[in-house]
Amino acid sequence: MLGQGKVADYIPALSGISPKKFGMSIHLISGERFSVGDFKENFSIQSISKIFTLSMAMALDDDSIWKRVGREPSGSKFNSLIQLEYEHGIPRNPFINAGAHVITDIVFSGYSETKLAILELVQRLSANKSIDYNEEVAQSERETGNRNLAMGYFMKSYGNIHNKVREVLDVYFHQCSLSMSCQDLSRAFLYLANDGVMPSTGEQIISKKDSDRINALMLTCGMYDSVGDFAYRVGLPSKSGVGGGIVAIVPGQMSIAVWSPGLSESGNSLAGTFALEQFVNYTGKSIF
Amino acid sequence: MLGQGKVADYIPALSGISPKKFGMSIHLISGERFSVGDFKENFSIQSISKIFTLSMAMALDDDSIWKRVGREPSGSKFNSLIQLEYEHGIPRNPFINAGAHVITDIVFSGYSETKLAILELVQRLSANKSIDYNEEVAQSERETGNRNLAMGYFMKSYGNIHNKVREVLDVYFHQCSLSMSCQDLSRAFLYLANDGVMPSTGEQIISKKDSDRINALMLTCGMYDSVGDFAYRVGLPSKSGVGGGIVAIVPGQMSIAVWSPGLSESGNSLAGTFALEQFVNYTGKSIF
Amino acid sequence: MLGQGKVADYIPALSGISPKKFGMSIHLISGERFSVGDFKENFSIQSISKIFTLSMAMALDDDSIWKRVGREPSGSKFNSLIQLEYEHGIPRNPFINAGAHVITDIVFSGYSETKLAILELVQRLSANKSIDYNEEVAQSERETGNRNLAMGYFMKSYGNIHNKVREVLDVYFHQCSLSMSCQDLSRAFLYLANDGVMPSTGEQIISKKDSDRINALMLTCGMYDSVGDFAYRVGLPSKSGVGGGIVAIVPGQMSIAVWSPGLSESGNSLAGTFALEQFVNYTGKSIF
Amino acid sequence: MLGQGKVADYIPALSGISPKKFGMSIHLISGERFSVGDFKENFSIQSISKIFTLSMAMALDDDSIWKRVGREPSGSKFNSLIQLEYEHGIPRNPFINAGAHVITDIVFSGYSETKLAILELVQRLSANKSIDYNEEVAQSERETGNRNLAMGYFMKSYGNIHNKVREVLDVYFHQCSLSMSCQDLSRAFLYLANDGVMPSTGEQIISKKDSDRINALMLTCGMYDSVGDFAYRVGLPSKSGVGGGIVAIVPGQMSIAVWSPGLSESGNSLAGTFALEQFVNYTGKSIF
Repeated sequence: MLGQGKVADYIPALSGISPKKFGMSIHLISGERFSVGDFKENFSIQSISKIFTLSMAMALDDDSIWKRVGREPSGSKFNSLIQLEYEHGIPRNPFINAGAHVITDIVFSGYSETKLAILELVQRLSANKSIDYNEEVAQSERETGNRNLAMGYFMKSYGNIHNKVREVLDVYFHQCSLSMSCQDLSRAFLYLANDGVMPSTGEQIISKKDSDRINALMLTCGMYDSVGDFAYRVGLPSKSGVGGGIVAIVPGQMSIAVWSPGLSESGNSLAGTFALEQFVNYTGKSIF
Repeated sequence: MLGQGKVADYIPALSGISPKKFGMSIHLISGERFSVGDFKENFSIQSISKIFTLSMAMALDDDSIWKRVGREPSGSKFNSLIQLEYEHGIPRNPFINAGAHVITDIVFSGYSETKLAILELVQRLSANKSIDYNEEVAQSERETGNRNLAMGYFMKSYGNIHNKVREVLDVYFHQCSLSMSCQDLSRAFLYLANDGVMPSTGEQIISKKDSDRINALMLTCGMYDSVGDFAYRVGLPSKSGVGGGIVAIVPGQMSIAVWSPGLSESGNSLAGTFALEQFVNYTGKSIF
Repeated sequence: MLGQGKVADYIPALSGISPKKFGMSIHLISGERFSVGDFKENFSIQSISKIFTLSMAMALDDDSIWKRVGREPSGSKFNSLIQLEYEHGIPRNPFINAGAHVITDIVFSGYSETKLAILELVQRLSANKSIDYNEEVAQSERETGNRNLAMGYFMKSYGNIHNKVREVLDVYFHQCSLSMSCQDLSRAFLYLANDGVMPSTGEQIISKKDSDRINALMLTCGMYDSVGDFAYRVGLPSKSGVGGGIVAIVPGQMSIAVWSPGLSESGNSLAGTFALEQFVNYTGKSIF
Repeated sequence: MLGQGKVADYIPALSGISPKKFGMSIHLISGERFSVGDFKENFSIQSISKIFTLSMAMALDDDSIWKRVGREPSGSKFNSLIQLEYEHGIPRNPFINAGAHVITDIVFSGYSETKLAILELVQRLSANKSIDYNEEVAQSERETGNRNLAMGYFMKSYGNIHNKVREVLDVYFHQCSLSMSCQDLSRAFLYLANDGVMPSTGEQIISKKDSDRINALMLTCGMYDSVGDFAYRVGLPSKSGVGGGIVAIVPGQMSIAVWSPGLSESGNSLAGTFALEQFVNYTGKSIF
């Protein structure tokens, strides 16, 4: 697996990374952690950032979200405009790009200085003040982001983007550009393994119910067009990004982050998926 | 919830049943069981039967199945021909009708006297020799089954049905017509809560790995076009039928069957879904 | 062009024919005729037969047809089930396969001994008593016709096939198997160039209005997924068949039949299209 | 018919017009003209402007256009993004909105001071120097044009818009805002009835071949999602606009413009279509 797959190359900043990189970090609720390989190396978290913004949106007001975004698997490629047209501008779930735009639009309306608010949350969850946006990546995304603009204006034509499309996308491109390590990510998502509470600080990030719900959304919608295959092979709530990262949750026990840039056709890390599959085979930690 | 929703009426044998019926049975691995309401009353299990045939097909040969059926959520109505055309006759998963036809075709090839083989398995799992096909329901399905015929011939045009379409559908209509109670069903599916082994007899129905996988498929594909919503609200691997039944698994602990004939727009029992949601809220038994 | 393209090979009876065959016949309303090449050789007229059955259906009752079939170009492959599903079993036009099934179903209801009635009309229009069905072709179509069966049962599920699917398709497969020459075909369709009247006999086959309408339908829907390109290049109401035949009408003047078995990707005769394009370039007989 | 239908109301400037307005003008090649009703009143020509820009693009270079735009009927709603996605950013024809954007992009690249160039051509063809853009309409279109922006950026993501999306759309919104009367329009399009030559001046606007081709495109793609129905009922190459105008060509004879703001569901003028149908019934001037 390692060294195979295709490294995302739609922006220069992503394409230069070796597909042989591999890192993995596990954080237990107890505070213990286990790491291996390039677990300290920063990479572009891309779509994994959608969990942060979804958590922020659900903390604002859970119920109104679901009038603007569905929570069903998409059944087609993650950036498709087709389903959006059939369903009148309502994206199928918060993890496809269109759905993530709506969530960022909600966060944009609810938090002033949105980019700063996101960054502060991520730094606090990771206990790492050095985490930052990668302006070069954000800039590249903006320059090649015609399809995201198309989706944004398309949803705006249905009234489902409330702020200016370019301003919402500026936040979106920044959140995707967040540069973090496996160690940062596995720590940051411990609250999803612990009923919404960060175990180290006791801070309630989201309610227990919402924590369960985000895990459910990750399992049914978190792995692009391979959610069924991933659930079949791994069986853990997970979210991937085209930077090669995957975050997986073992409810009640631990949070796992794995990174390797070579991607499958679906856009998920090949070696990362394989590592999680082996982990579950050895430990029996599938939720099923 | 009770008494609301629409009772399935596409065949006379289903339409006559009161939407106020409600039954629920829970079987623990330990042998204990808890039941309430109309739990002894037989109803038409319909699509719930797809788990029996999938288990039989996986017991034959796990790997070859997935060349003929996908394992991704469908993202559209459960009997749609559209996705089938885009994906050249390969149904998205074994629980949409087209996928269930392929599974029944595999079972038809692998077990002589197929209808008898299915019935014997179901009777053994339920420890109830009186379970039988409802010939009136099977006959009605056949008479109104033009859409199922269309799907069958369509897949045959792609070479994905190996036996005669009418013979495969005869088995399919019979398996859907199986008449069982909540008590029967919750007992029958205990092997999915116990790593593939029937706890009472020790019989290994399927491997532990396949048991995990069927649970994963149920969670991502088992509730028609509401899998995401159901995972969000209930969070248990489940399979529903238009007769109003739902089976849910708490891995490692128990199997639950609930029945109430009033259906949501997606075709899932309204009161049944509500009962499972309450059960999870009170017990915290979600897998997330 | 000649000798290029792909000869239809989905049934053995069509695949054996040399792509170098080429014939063309022109019949003027005045009675004059001009022919070249293999114009006396019989070939399988296939979809061209849909004009005969449409004329028969319109002669029965013009208005009720259009509640069961649309008259818009399909915008997608000629045998697609997708549009049929979006439009609830109403095919887009009478020349896609599904639409032709409905037309044959109407003819089946309206003419007893349907196969004989079609054959007699075709013989009379062509003034050729030797024209007959090719039973070998009809039999082959039936054996490979799973997709047509799928469409038939699918429309029956919407109530848009009134007779038995297999009986309607038997007539359909026979009409497609009609074995005729360019000379036969160009004579047979002279009524469409002459306001519905056969010039030699004065027989009114269909009304003037219906003759105009069939020409309009041929121009907008007659050439599979290349109607726009064909109108752009040739500019004559035309209907093609996968046997390599094309019939074209110059309203008020003449009927043209051309045949060459090598097909374009869209399923239209390559050399036949080229011959018609050259004919229009030299004579200026485009309707535009 | 008159006074029925729905007046376009997506921008204020269009919604205020009485559905009882009706005008019609016929220009013969000979120079004679016949007019009735509100034929001198200016209205927003909207999509009819797509013929002007298509003529300008074909005058630049005929062949390269058809690598960027198809010439097949769309088979679905005129502003659909779906077909665009299936066909990788290549619009089906130059008369759906996305296709018109590409044509305007070509004109934008080929003519400096594009808006002025379009206006001068239209004034010259109409022999009316007072014709102008309606800035209020153009401004309204821009403000409500999120769907057009979505299409523009979507095609740009496929590389099929070469200039800046907002600049191309600025031209597009202006061409749609052109304010003209039936008298202006029927005069302006006489070149399409006369092999590309303006009869009054002898100016060759486009080649004879291109004139035939534009007529063919109008017949197969000019009436939104009703081309088949319109060809069936009227049988003339025509182009409609949501302002209620329709232009129709009788090749070799005359150009017709009709206007009435009440629209059918497809977006074509109800009374205008009816008037053209009656005209053809009385005169027999269908091309079929």
